[in-house]
Amino acid sequence: MNPRLEYESVAVSSRIRLARNFKDYPFPALLLRDPHAEEQASEMIRLLSAELTSMEEFHLYKMKDISEQDAELLKERYLISRDLIAHGKISAALISEDESISVMINEEDHVREQYFIKGFDLGRAYERISGIDDIISDSIPFAYDEELGYLTACPTNLGTGLRASVMLFLPALSRRGRLQRVMPVLTRLGLTVRGAFGEGSGAEGDLFQISNEVTLGLSEGEILREVEQAVTKLVDMELSERIRMKVEEGPALEDRIMRSLGILTCCRLLEEREFVSRISDIKLGIALGLFGDGGKREVRIDELDRLQIAMRPGGLKLLSREAAGAERQSELRARYVAEKLRNMKLL
Amino acid sequence: MNPRLEYESVAVSSRIRLARNFKDYPFPALLLRDPHAEEQASEMIRLLSAELTSMEEFHLYKMKDISEQDAELLKERYLISRDLIAHGKISAALISEDESISVMINEEDHVREQYFIKGFDLGRAYERISGIDDIISDSIPFAYDEELGYLTACPTNLGTGLRASVMLFLPALSRRGRLQRVMPVLTRLGLTVRGAFGEGSGAEGDLFQISNEVTLGLSEGEILREVEQAVTKLVDMELSERIRMKVEEGPALEDRIMRSLGILTCCRLLEEREFVSRISDIKLGIALGLFGDGGKREVRIDELDRLQIAMRPGGLKLLSREAAGAERQSELRARYVAEKLRNMKLL
Repeated sequence: MNPRLEYESVAVSSRIRLARNFKDYPFPALLLRDPHAEEQASEMIRLLSAELTSMEEFHLYKMKDISEQDAELLKERYLISRDLIAHGKISAALISEDESISVMINEEDHVREQYFIKGFDLGRAYERISGIDDIISDSIPFAYDEELGYLTACPTNLGTGLRASVMLFLPALSRRGRLQRVMPVLTRLGLTVRGAFGEGSGAEGDLFQISNEVTLGLSEGEILREVEQAVTKLVDMELSERIRMKVEEGPALEDRIMRSLGILTCCRLLEEREFVSRISDIKLGIALGLFGDGGKREVRIDELDRLQIAMRPGGLKLLSREAAGAERQSELRARYVAEKLRNMKLL
Repeated sequence: MNPRLEYESVAVSSRIRLARNFKDYPFPALLLRDPHAEEQASEMIRLLSAELTSMEEFHLYKMKDISEQDAELLKERYLISRDLIAHGKISAALISEDESISVMINEEDHVREQYFIKGFDLGRAYERISGIDDIISDSIPFAYDEELGYLTACPTNLGTGLRASVMLFLPALSRRGRLQRVMPVLTRLGLTVRGAFGEGSGAEGDLFQISNEVTLGLSEGEILREVEQAVTKLVDMELSERIRMKVEEGPALEDRIMRSLGILTCCRLLEEREFVSRISDIKLGIALGLFGDGGKREVRIDELDRLQIAMRPGGLKLLSREAAGAERQSELRARYVAEKLRNMKLL
């Protein structure tokens, strides 16, 4: 694998998020209790929508207008949050055609601007989202304090309102108990490590989000640099640990990975928890070059990352066009996963 | 599946064994302590060998002359016993070209004549072994008592010296706890149920040997009839239980069987215990018609039965031409089994 691709077999994707509020509107938590909430929200949505769509293609999803199922699907694809759905009366999302940009309106703050990019490139992600941020602030003025910076609903977002996060695939560090030992160091550096699905979620499938905890007192550039440095360190640690793991665990590791492949291509019932853990085995196997045909590794890992998202409950409903119960979901998941993996011809 | 084949997916093979001793030689246990043991044993072996090979092709294996590895291999193929190996100084086996007939010399008794046949046909097995028995008794007279019948080392073999046994594949009865409930009935009928590998062995791979306990006080015909009736009953019970199992356990059963297939075709380490249990899943799956292509079911089950024997430690050594330790055996087994199952194209 070439070095960039090897890097990206650990640092899967990067995300920059800016939290902003408008000075002429009540903050969302207050707005919700306002008798004219919906009119004010409509105005914000209309203004932002007009401004952004003049620049490029955006889809507008008003939360009160879309089905529960569509909302779930957007959430599973990391495009909107649980809080946005909860604020349905006043909230909306503007999502770019390629799904790299998502602007959530009236989540915890008036605006949450996100830029998502495959691989590890916080700099480019920040540049892209800054462009969006400028356009928005031109149309509606932000609440900004000379001393505190951008004002936000929660004090942890005060200042830059910037959260830089990188999704890391850390099977070796995590399974060999090394990650736990690094955690306190990261915390001291003002960084947080969370499971893939945000706050409070476990580390499903060995995916971890690393991001800055603090947004105040540092410049945007300093925040990006801190996260970048920590990610670079973790990637190096993970890559070395994978080599050590392969040497030390040898046939037993290969056996475990190959069994996961066998089970995923053959089983008839597959719960999400097991699926996520076994797909992590397969991705690790691809990264370790167990399946040969190394040139295609990055394509394959990427396909599996997308499969992982598509196999969440909302994705399954979309694919199968049925509102399936837990056992039926398990059956459907087994069928889709088996088909996908057989087509990948890893054996 | 046609009815005969369906029957044979339960009653896998039949075996008749006759225990005999010669009146002019000390019984093996005594013979072992005789200063002229080896000369007397040589004489017996020479006489029997001459007589039998005049009739058809037999291979003679003198236990003192063959390697430990070859002895293990014969034992794994049910052609000789542990006791025969233990009596190495005086013991031998005459085995027919097609391995259906095995005559053990100086095991517990002077002669143990066995006929093995695929499927369920004790009558034909008895007919064949009686022919052998007549030839042997013509060459060396047997120890026979008008009242007690054939004299044997152990009183449980006195009388007819006949043991009729049928190997049964009982995954449904055994896994669903029904077999335990039938056991007392069988015992009352004077029958014994043992694991596939003889006395003291567990029921590995859901294979059970049913045979008569008593050889005295009943005619040969009566013994055969009793075993046949019990087998017929057990086959019917197993076939009904398989149908019930399929209906009641549905997708979970199919999932378990398919996972076993996935693991066996992909794993890199495979211990014998796990292999035997998973191959039982696959055979059950074939019997239940899970893999389609029903016309070939009996061929496939037969192939897997042979694979099961070939994958025991001695068989592995023969195939790999190496005296492998436990972990290496596990690796070799995984490789052979995966290759075999992929070639069977069950998916």
